[in-house]
Amino acid sequence: MTLNVEQRREIDGARALRHETRRATVPALEEILFEPIPVLNHGFIRVIDYMGDDAAIVQAARVSYGRGTKKVHEDAGLIRYLMRHWHSTPFEMAEIKYHVKLPIFVARQWIRHRTANVNEYSARYSRLTDEFYLPEPEQLGIQSSANRQGRGAAIGTEQAAEVLAILREDARRCYDDYVRLLNEDEDGRPIDPGRAGLARELARMNLTLGTYTEWYWKTDLHNLMNFLRLRADAHAQYEIRVYAEAMLETLRRWVPHTYEAFREYRLGAAQISASGLAVIRRLLAGETVSAEASGLSKREWRELMAVLGREDK
Amino acid sequence: MTLNVEQRREIDGARALRHETRRATVPALEEILFEPIPVLNHGFIRVIDYMGDDAAIVQAARVSYGRGTKKVHEDAGLIRYLMRHWHSTPFEMAEIKYHVKLPIFVARQWIRHRTANVNEYSARYSRLTDEFYLPEPEQLGIQSSANRQGRGAAIGTEQAAEVLAILREDARRCYDDYVRLLNEDEDGRPIDPGRAGLARELARMNLTLGTYTEWYWKTDLHNLMNFLRLRADAHAQYEIRVYAEAMLETLRRWVPHTYEAFREYRLGAAQISASGLAVIRRLLAGETVSAEASGLSKREWRELMAVLGREDK
Amino acid sequence: MTLNVEQRREIDGARALRHETRRATVPALEEILFEPIPVLNHGFIRVIDYMGDDAAIVQAARVSYGRGTKKVHEDAGLIRYLMRHWHSTPFEMAEIKYHVKLPIFVARQWIRHRTANVNEYSARYSRLTDEFYLPEPEQLGIQSSANRQGRGAAIGTEQAAEVLAILREDARRCYDDYVRLLNEDEDGRPIDPGRAGLARELARMNLTLGTYTEWYWKTDLHNLMNFLRLRADAHAQYEIRVYAEAMLETLRRWVPHTYEAFREYRLGAAQISASGLAVIRRLLAGETVSAEASGLSKREWRELMAVLGREDK
Amino acid sequence: MTLNVEQRREIDGARALRHETRRATVPALEEILFEPIPVLNHGFIRVIDYMGDDAAIVQAARVSYGRGTKKVHEDAGLIRYLMRHWHSTPFEMAEIKYHVKLPIFVARQWIRHRTANVNEYSARYSRLTDEFYLPEPEQLGIQSSANRQGRGAAIGTEQAAEVLAILREDARRCYDDYVRLLNEDEDGRPIDPGRAGLARELARMNLTLGTYTEWYWKTDLHNLMNFLRLRADAHAQYEIRVYAEAMLETLRRWVPHTYEAFREYRLGAAQISASGLAVIRRLLAGETVSAEASGLSKREWRELMAVLGREDK
Repeated sequence: MTLNVEQRREIDGARALRHETRRATVPALEEILFEPIPVLNHGFIRVIDYMGDDAAIVQAARVSYGRGTKKVHEDAGLIRYLMRHWHSTPFEMAEIKYHVKLPIFVARQWIRHRTANVNEYSARYSRLTDEFYLPEPEQLGIQSSANRQGRGAAIGTEQAAEVLAILREDARRCYDDYVRLLNEDEDGRPIDPGRAGLARELARMNLTLGTYTEWYWKTDLHNLMNFLRLRADAHAQYEIRVYAEAMLETLRRWVPHTYEAFREYRLGAAQISASGLAVIRRLLAGETVSAEASGLSKREWRELMAVLGREDK
Repeated sequence: MTLNVEQRREIDGARALRHETRRATVPALEEILFEPIPVLNHGFIRVIDYMGDDAAIVQAARVSYGRGTKKVHEDAGLIRYLMRHWHSTPFEMAEIKYHVKLPIFVARQWIRHRTANVNEYSARYSRLTDEFYLPEPEQLGIQSSANRQGRGAAIGTEQAAEVLAILREDARRCYDDYVRLLNEDEDGRPIDPGRAGLARELARMNLTLGTYTEWYWKTDLHNLMNFLRLRADAHAQYEIRVYAEAMLETLRRWVPHTYEAFREYRLGAAQISASGLAVIRRLLAGETVSAEASGLSKREWRELMAVLGREDK
Repeated sequence: MTLNVEQRREIDGARALRHETRRATVPALEEILFEPIPVLNHGFIRVIDYMGDDAAIVQAARVSYGRGTKKVHEDAGLIRYLMRHWHSTPFEMAEIKYHVKLPIFVARQWIRHRTANVNEYSARYSRLTDEFYLPEPEQLGIQSSANRQGRGAAIGTEQAAEVLAILREDARRCYDDYVRLLNEDEDGRPIDPGRAGLARELARMNLTLGTYTEWYWKTDLHNLMNFLRLRADAHAQYEIRVYAEAMLETLRRWVPHTYEAFREYRLGAAQISASGLAVIRRLLAGETVSAEASGLSKREWRELMAVLGREDK
Repeated sequence: MTLNVEQRREIDGARALRHETRRATVPALEEILFEPIPVLNHGFIRVIDYMGDDAAIVQAARVSYGRGTKKVHEDAGLIRYLMRHWHSTPFEMAEIKYHVKLPIFVARQWIRHRTANVNEYSARYSRLTDEFYLPEPEQLGIQSSANRQGRGAAIGTEQAAEVLAILREDARRCYDDYVRLLNEDEDGRPIDPGRAGLARELARMNLTLGTYTEWYWKTDLHNLMNFLRLRADAHAQYEIRVYAEAMLETLRRWVPHTYEAFREYRLGAAQISASGLAVIRRLLAGETVSAEASGLSKREWRELMAVLGREDK
């Protein structure tokens, strides 16, 4: 992560201010408010604002007049109940806003979650900075043969160096040509006053998908958990998963009871199919069930055995 | 509006608390936070929480690192620009949450605005209270003949008394029978221990559409303005318009620059059709244009003349 | 279900027409197109239009140029894969539109599913008809003590008659007074030409929540399945469940492969919590696990045992 | 636009089939169904499916039982009324699905319209083809000085050649390196069997934003018009505007009455601010109003004069 002096100063300035409020306030989240949490080589997430806390979810679920006089224990129980029974509306009553810096190809995956508000840095309006994603060598996986849309083992030290050189040089050349097309220096002045600059809205097409962009992204707690369930999952692409993992930690600070219920009923839970349940019932009844006789496909059998901790069977 | 002792105590308790926060805070809105603003005979709105302020909209529009060092004057100008050019995403970055008490037939209109989060008091879970909407006599309009879905002049004192008697007695009888079906007193105990009570989820069907319900309703500033543009309009049904008007006042306290821009470019503005623009151009060129020669329907002509302040033409 | 002569004639007229199309077409669904399927005493659902079929889902998933030359077997496999891995976007590519007649209290539950398009019969514009929901006696359940928002055993023959009499009389009286307030007969003419009629938008508040309304409701296949998963569930209120069950049957006709995958991975599946999975692993390892030592609440333990077919344990 | 032999064959195959349906059918749209309409150098839009027609909008607005016996004249009038009064729900009852091939930087703008369903070609799953957007020389505008996010005059013949050379070479080199990283030929076989291929999900980051992607995009008629109002506007970036213009033509074929109302009340209409209306009233009253005394900013004054056809004032 690279913050320039001005950005660091602005963040520190914002962090230094304190206001008095009647609103639900979460000290553990206030602690890290505005502060960037580094992700990948140049990216970050930082929490810009939030609305509500665990108690506010309970308050909405009860359509209460006050902040509630119920015990913390009961609040946690109600939150577990709501999560378990897919009662999503009370979780929609809490909201969070992030500032995210991320590579464009990650942004393209991210934006598929439509139930959120987004305001992106405009490359029609301003020049982008020269920051590109370059993976750590150990992240340079080969194409997985088992999973057509995933990656497998690391590609090997020698080839990794070659890959990184290609990525770096192509990104750099494209960026330098982008600046040449714009004919605009960092302060927005012409580099060569004798030439015209191509419109920013056009020049940007010369950048690679590894270039960083930034956006403000705001969503409610229910949709944040939908995002995290899919993107913090082991099958998600590494480059978006690391963002989701950083956000999971902000979730833990913000709404600890909800976070616990989310681990119990979503992240650590498993959806077992009708046929999968039938297999479990037969196993519990003492039957020996083979993959072939299970009615499951090989892949589903493997996944079920993994969930049941019987990978060796 | 009727708050019972417990509700008043809970609200006062919540209002008495103060927290320290780094978040954008709006003193003028904090002042009325949690406090119910009466609407209709038993209803209210009250602001439960909010996220962001005018500066936060600007901050999102600029994807800023800090809270901004720009002058207030420039912020107001940018907000006007965003509103005028239908740039909605920065306005989506601010959020507000209301607690609303409203008659069910109003709730049914309100819920048609789908881009919001709602958590309603559950009549499957709890008994509703005996509060019904009864219009003020001057609101008892006759069916409009000009507008098939609106109301016209007040119905006259004598008939008004008759109407109100019908509404009151039917609502009361239905409610009393509802309680009889439930066989449940205010504290949830059987009224007649020898009888079973009908399930709440069924008994509620005996209530009239004038019965009050309550919900938590949360939306972003952009969608709030969409709601207000339609529901604070003179053509909206009176019973929802009074809620919108009370919310307009909370908008003014919350984001005064946005409020001004909203009045200028939405509430006080007019959408003029292609043919309407042609008429204005001919009028400005000194032509005399008659309704018949305008190419507009009679109704569109009347509406255009009203917008142009020429009702007499 | 009650169709008047004019409605029956219009439906028959629409059903009699045939057009030629290049679009994906599903004969099994065409067969019942426009035809009302009765639900409750006066309600119905009928399919008005649809877009896409099983093959169209596959076509979208592959971003294909043609309708696909793949075998039916492969299509079914891909649909199962998409469903199992929560890949929702291809299912969003099929769309269905229903005309539904339903009691208002059911409509109020239904509308909470926001990702759909709705156009409701306007009681501001037209008079509602005198049709109310009256449950079958066996549906008159008492308030459940185990489940605060459900119903238990039937209320008993004698009391059922009493309940139905109350529901019938209150609905009837409210409706008759509604017509009196409107002063408008079925053809929209004044009943008493000497009196003014109250505006329809006001008079409707005198109706009970058991009164029927109608709407056009359109949604995509993904959101339809979300609706059905929650509303065809045994915990859903009976009066909305019967609508969901009728719609399930239209799903089976429309997209049979998707329907099968939906039964396997959603309707017949179970979400097992992290602690629940731990219990299953211990049971499979031959341990004896008691409710007390399971780490689950009593209710969660009961539910897990039910899913595992060990209710007696 | 470049279709390969297989794609052309698949499209022709799909176009050759005819089915019988009871659904609303639009011959003028059926005519072009599945057929790509070229946009930019390699892009296209093609209509894949549709639901509803002008009459279906009317049918939904009336919650009808049949397809309607009303006259075409009345249907057109109702559609104009609905459009004029922002009654959006009946327009949501019609749906259309496109297959679109477009440069990634255009796709990034497009996807900001969230009320739509999208299924994009997966670059995690398959190799992208070597097609890049290269503007026509006359589209190579310089950065506009009046409008920070637009383009001005064309850049001049000589410099245009230079710009195109840069865009072409960088796109080509990045693509060739992408293939080298993948180590995968067009048929998915290793180019150099002795080397491992980098995972597709990583290699794609080396592509430029001018590379073409493809998606299925489905939306309802109301949201389609929102898209077209913004993207067919003169201020929209040229590269997305040409897609919007091609879609406008499909709109005209599909729902001609809606199309006419859309031109009258949206595309050809103007939103006049409160201050702008005041200026018009003064002008009509015969006053001379100067820009300075108008209360409008210079830019707003210019825009108002343009709308009123008084650019010279």
